[in-house]
Amino acid sequence: MNSVNSFGIIGGDKRQLYCAQKMAEDGFTVYISGFEHCSCPPGCIPENPRTTARLSDAVILPMPVSRSKGELFAPFSDGIIPLSLLRQTIPADKPVLCGINGAAEQYELDGLRIIRYSSREEFAAANAVPTAEGAVEIAMREYEGTINGADCLVTGYGNIGKILCFMLRGLGANVTAAARKHKDRALIRGSGMKDADIYSLSGHYDLIFNTVPALIFDRHTLAQCAAESIIIDLASMPGGIDDNAADKLKIPVIHALSLPGKAAPKSAGIIIKNAVYNIIREEEL
Amino acid sequence: MNSVNSFGIIGGDKRQLYCAQKMAEDGFTVYISGFEHCSCPPGCIPENPRTTARLSDAVILPMPVSRSKGELFAPFSDGIIPLSLLRQTIPADKPVLCGINGAAEQYELDGLRIIRYSSREEFAAANAVPTAEGAVEIAMREYEGTINGADCLVTGYGNIGKILCFMLRGLGANVTAAARKHKDRALIRGSGMKDADIYSLSGHYDLIFNTVPALIFDRHTLAQCAAESIIIDLASMPGGIDDNAADKLKIPVIHALSLPGKAAPKSAGIIIKNAVYNIIREEEL
Amino acid sequence: MNSVNSFGIIGGDKRQLYCAQKMAEDGFTVYISGFEHCSCPPGCIPENPRTTARLSDAVILPMPVSRSKGELFAPFSDGIIPLSLLRQTIPADKPVLCGINGAAEQYELDGLRIIRYSSREEFAAANAVPTAEGAVEIAMREYEGTINGADCLVTGYGNIGKILCFMLRGLGANVTAAARKHKDRALIRGSGMKDADIYSLSGHYDLIFNTVPALIFDRHTLAQCAAESIIIDLASMPGGIDDNAADKLKIPVIHALSLPGKAAPKSAGIIIKNAVYNIIREEEL
Amino acid sequence: MNSVNSFGIIGGDKRQLYCAQKMAEDGFTVYISGFEHCSCPPGCIPENPRTTARLSDAVILPMPVSRSKGELFAPFSDGIIPLSLLRQTIPADKPVLCGINGAAEQYELDGLRIIRYSSREEFAAANAVPTAEGAVEIAMREYEGTINGADCLVTGYGNIGKILCFMLRGLGANVTAAARKHKDRALIRGSGMKDADIYSLSGHYDLIFNTVPALIFDRHTLAQCAAESIIIDLASMPGGIDDNAADKLKIPVIHALSLPGKAAPKSAGIIIKNAVYNIIREEEL
Repeated sequence: MNSVNSFGIIGGDKRQLYCAQKMAEDGFTVYISGFEHCSCPPGCIPENPRTTARLSDAVILPMPVSRSKGELFAPFSDGIIPLSLLRQTIPADKPVLCGINGAAEQYELDGLRIIRYSSREEFAAANAVPTAEGAVEIAMREYEGTINGADCLVTGYGNIGKILCFMLRGLGANVTAAARKHKDRALIRGSGMKDADIYSLSGHYDLIFNTVPALIFDRHTLAQCAAESIIIDLASMPGGIDDNAADKLKIPVIHALSLPGKAAPKSAGIIIKNAVYNIIREEEL
Repeated sequence: MNSVNSFGIIGGDKRQLYCAQKMAEDGFTVYISGFEHCSCPPGCIPENPRTTARLSDAVILPMPVSRSKGELFAPFSDGIIPLSLLRQTIPADKPVLCGINGAAEQYELDGLRIIRYSSREEFAAANAVPTAEGAVEIAMREYEGTINGADCLVTGYGNIGKILCFMLRGLGANVTAAARKHKDRALIRGSGMKDADIYSLSGHYDLIFNTVPALIFDRHTLAQCAAESIIIDLASMPGGIDDNAADKLKIPVIHALSLPGKAAPKSAGIIIKNAVYNIIREEEL
Repeated sequence: MNSVNSFGIIGGDKRQLYCAQKMAEDGFTVYISGFEHCSCPPGCIPENPRTTARLSDAVILPMPVSRSKGELFAPFSDGIIPLSLLRQTIPADKPVLCGINGAAEQYELDGLRIIRYSSREEFAAANAVPTAEGAVEIAMREYEGTINGADCLVTGYGNIGKILCFMLRGLGANVTAAARKHKDRALIRGSGMKDADIYSLSGHYDLIFNTVPALIFDRHTLAQCAAESIIIDLASMPGGIDDNAADKLKIPVIHALSLPGKAAPKSAGIIIKNAVYNIIREEEL
Repeated sequence: MNSVNSFGIIGGDKRQLYCAQKMAEDGFTVYISGFEHCSCPPGCIPENPRTTARLSDAVILPMPVSRSKGELFAPFSDGIIPLSLLRQTIPADKPVLCGINGAAEQYELDGLRIIRYSSREEFAAANAVPTAEGAVEIAMREYEGTINGADCLVTGYGNIGKILCFMLRGLGANVTAAARKHKDRALIRGSGMKDADIYSLSGHYDLIFNTVPALIFDRHTLAQCAAESIIIDLASMPGGIDDNAADKLKIPVIHALSLPGKAAPKSAGIIIKNAVYNIIREEEL
């Protein structure tokens, strides 16, 4: 980590601001650009994107990099920051760490030394925490009973499913977790919860949380076990629910996406920071 | 419980509606008055207050009974329901179950056979659950990090303190619970948390929850351990925080009162129902 | 606590040895007598009872003080230590801290300045932890299945009941806690467990833990819900089970008493130490 | 599962007996051989191995199949059951479900239609529960303090590590879990525990549980963080500890192997049953 002494954080929302602040607290020199509408975090140096790109040893771009074509995602910026500006300004050998999802974005940053912090395994695992907690917060807001004592179903037992089950049980809910693999079902039972086969769901639930990006809740399953439920779908669109059927059955479905940045930008920013540090350490930038 | 076959629920908010609905589901005849702006819960019979008072074996009034002088608390009602109407209409020997706090209200119901469900021990204990969960929801909304991993301090280890600690630990927070009695501190340690002396608090906390209706957080203690905290005060006003000092120190304080009705009216309604049933069984109405 | 700089620990088992060791680690001068068959804990000074009684500022006797008439309980001692020796040797104004249960023992220490650490509220609360954990250990040893996933019933929700429920739920058992008071039942539900009325138990349980010193499990209740159970009775004798009936029904009953000293003498010793310190601080010895 | 209506359970310990009993309770015809020294579980039919092999639709052998060369592992048998007898008696197309570890054993069953229930993913996952609970039981027996409040280190975060961490935290221990992958460390933090890098352990622990079959605790690490610990090694021999170094440092090391059958034969038997059922369903025997 010797060769990186300064970071340039260009664009992004509160997550990037918290990331910047924590990096400054860790002793790095941190330049920030595109945050004119916020107060500058203590220890950070506001600069224009060009200067930030030049002065910093590594550039950090937001997740997602862009929400409208050709423009950096920079909701707190005074003006537009074109991706082309970055392409022209950042030297080709300088590491550019960013949260890229689609191929389209990558194209616009062609020629830069792109490293995706969002594709690291621990980035996804760590973000399961603010995602799960954001889902719990939504459930608390929407459901007129308490989570404590509620019958909750969680479909999928990956990172998010695991942490969400942990939290719901921790609040005192009756948790059933549904998975496909026998192995996961054994671990679910061993963690003090009821298990279910994700392909043959039954029973009644007050709250259903889906984490699987596949059609789990078709018309039949909705009628079977969601008749009086609220469904919170955490899977990326189109999600795991037949929305038309849910609509006809008057089952409320909440598609809850990008929760870390909304529910806990501070934690999400620290997660970005940690992923960046791990990249630098392991890839010897 | 033989002699009570019907309930008359007059006035109140969503809690009373849920109470009515659950009583109807349990097989009681339930008359409701003062809910013209809501859809009538299945199985309930809407009537005017006079008829409800006459036809029901027991009358249930809300908590609080009144929020403006001489008028029943009935936010979903078409018009005002004067307390004098109840006094004149309800027979003197008919049980009137209500949530009364102050002496003033009691006066206006003078002559009626008043029984306070709100003064039952299990009513307070059961309401600790929606209160604690409501506090967690506020913390999730206000705090920009996750509760998971946050350093949380809970002052007071009564009903609310116990359940709140359980939930925060269940979410994965680092929980310190502060109590006065050595006995409580031993139970806190035995429940997997750190204990502290409520009279000599120190350390740094991300979130502080006060449940004690006495000045715990004076200027000195605020400066000592709340400098970068968010404080959620659950104690009845004036609460446990020197608000002026907190203001000067720029420590945000949220006074969170009457949480059960706001955070979980369904659970709060069931708690009223249970208390009413216990009264009827034990006092042989 | 200024006036007590040295302790004299006379008699007792491993608990007293751990108490002595921890007091020495805290900087006190600690004389010990009656432990000739053990290696002396670091920092402690072995002396005969007479010298220990004379040199120390406060004397600590074991719990129980005596197990055979006229003799101090001192299982690790070379010889017998008569209570009369203590009565003659310890000055009348020197505090003598001990764990006395019965009146008979007290008589034999007549004339001394007796203070019972065992009657302090936090002593009982703190000992609930090694008691509960000892009960879990017995259950693990005796039951051929895992506690995880087992149906467990805990009767009584005092200190021991609360901690035992916490631990069993923490291991992943299905816990039902039975109490008398509606209030306790509300707190049980709020802590993520099933509640039951202690006077009308039903259902089937793999493991039953009784903490109530009253006949909870009569012939009828045993037949009703303990037919294939193992019962661990933590209540002081005669306990809460009709042993004859259990015997006829072939239900194994384990009377588990004095668990702290057996299951976790180190923790039990620290609990004695803490109680002694609290006495000295609060009673200004 | 239509074609298998009867099982023949030959040899093994209490696990196989419980497996037999549960299969009989599920409605299967169950022949058992090699259990002359036990009382026959209700619903099972004792036969000699030859008859059992002939009458049953599928044969179930123990885990391990053999503990001395050429002989079936059958500790409750009246006499020796040679593997050659099985090889000669069981028809070549009859499924033989067994728990085989080494290649040598397999050789002696050459020609039979061997299916290993022990190699199924869910078998290992489910056995993590009795293994972890057995480790907790050992810790309770060996450690003179309570697990509650103890500083515990768990190395490795696979099936056993996960469940063991869950249980220790559930008992109220201060749990640190050490893993190699950043991803696992994020999940550990998200589950309310401290994480550590398994390659640079430090700190002091009362109890250390190793689950990794590689040298984690070399001389240096032992000196660093195990000086006053008890170590319970759950990894298969030679385990994860430098035993010579531990010996010199006077650190007690307990190699705890084959825990499911010892700590919870009933649960272990049910796990075998479930694996057998899954095999039959999925492989359409």
